[in-house]
Amino acid sequence: MMATKPKLHYPNGRGRMESVRWVLAAAGVEFDEDFLETKEQLQKLQDGNHLLFQQVPMVEIDGMKLVQTRSILHYIADKHHLFGKDLKERTLYCGPSGVFSLVHLPILKIDMYVEGTLDLLELIIMHPFLKPDDQQKEVVNMAQKAIIRYFPVFEKVLRGHGQRFLVGNQLSLADIILLQTILALEEKIPNILSAFPHLQEFTVKISNIPTIKKFLEPGSKRKPPPDDIYVRTVYNVFMP
Amino acid sequence: MMATKPKLHYPNGRGRMESVRWVLAAAGVEFDEDFLETKEQLQKLQDGNHLLFQQVPMVEIDGMKLVQTRSILHYIADKHHLFGKDLKERTLYCGPSGVFSLVHLPILKIDMYVEGTLDLLELIIMHPFLKPDDQQKEVVNMAQKAIIRYFPVFEKVLRGHGQRFLVGNQLSLADIILLQTILALEEKIPNILSAFPHLQEFTVKISNIPTIKKFLEPGSKRKPPPDDIYVRTVYNVFMP
Repeated sequence: MMATKPKLHYPNGRGRMESVRWVLAAAGVEFDEDFLETKEQLQKLQDGNHLLFQQVPMVEIDGMKLVQTRSILHYIADKHHLFGKDLKERTLYCGPSGVFSLVHLPILKIDMYVEGTLDLLELIIMHPFLKPDDQQKEVVNMAQKAIIRYFPVFEKVLRGHGQRFLVGNQLSLADIILLQTILALEEKIPNILSAFPHLQEFTVKISNIPTIKKFLEPGSKRKPPPDDIYVRTVYNVFMP
Repeated sequence: MMATKPKLHYPNGRGRMESVRWVLAAAGVEFDEDFLETKEQLQKLQDGNHLLFQQVPMVEIDGMKLVQTRSILHYIADKHHLFGKDLKERTLYCGPSGVFSLVHLPILKIDMYVEGTLDLLELIIMHPFLKPDDQQKEVVNMAQKAIIRYFPVFEKVLRGHGQRFLVGNQLSLADIILLQTILALEEKIPNILSAFPHLQEFTVKISNIPTIKKFLEPGSKRKPPPDDIYVRTVYNVFMP
């Protein structure tokens, strides 16, 4: 039985869908895209009850119509073993009623790393929609957040365990979202990693994983940095 | 062996921690709180490396220091069976390589419902920090989002399966966050549920679950609506 390819519904640009493209590509999953270009196309999806909360990103996958960026990422990561569930690192704790339970620490770590990185990525996603005067200031803010708040954490993690992945010895959602975020930041601030040798090494190593290497090559479904056309399309599709 | 109570680090107000308080209370878990009142207290937590990304909410639990609201919620929900993992509703699908796998549909539903509701709740959390002129306009926006985008979905879910919970026949994170959001909205817009009879019934039923009923009574650790003192405290603690 041939599995149907997932179909992604979003404008032809990065936005909140780009992380989904990254994770599917990293997992080696081919996908189709249906690009929203007009308000009417969005309206049609809404009228057909295809969007749980009237919004995209929406991904048709395994007979379902998934929405909410994080939920889509969680589902794909879970399905393709990118959430650390098969990692052995666990801890035993004593529950409230004295019952011993197993906590999957890798999942928790991956979840926290992803959530932190998504907070940083959110600044990058919103950047093209700021007023021109605010855009330059915001690049400074992003650089500070990255250099002071987020990158030191990941640098320390990588230095600490000497492995190429953030959690355990296998690729996870955390690695993928971090690489996406680093590369998007480097487009704006080329030397952003200069004080972070382990993150530099991480960037090279993760970029060379075959599925990801392919995604980084021309002709893949990776989207270019947001330009005026993308910004105009987003306003056309989503603004009342 | 007596389990140590979780300790919550945040200002004495709702903000991003209130969902965590709700979920712990619903799970019947007692907790302690350490209220941040000054920049110096936050600085001390940061200097002591207690905050992974330099930010609160932070929750000390099971020997860990968890950060990022969603990660904290996921961990607590997972531990206390509020994530639908023990629900039987599953589907069999054919994976990319023809391998059959089990997908936990309840988890996915709960995740999507929670993510949608958190988007709505985010508007409520940010509201007291808007300029006075913008606050009234934003109440209108919130009411519209709730009435047009989110509540119809949950009304339909509840009408559809005739149960008191959103997913399956047991309390989940989705019910808790939705009730928190409904009650916070009702404080601002008392008749917000007037067109949603099933959500009205849901609100009464979930509010009467003993652990939640207790949390809704005076003297619990539930925080009051944000006032000027809370807003000033947040600025004091978090603004440079």
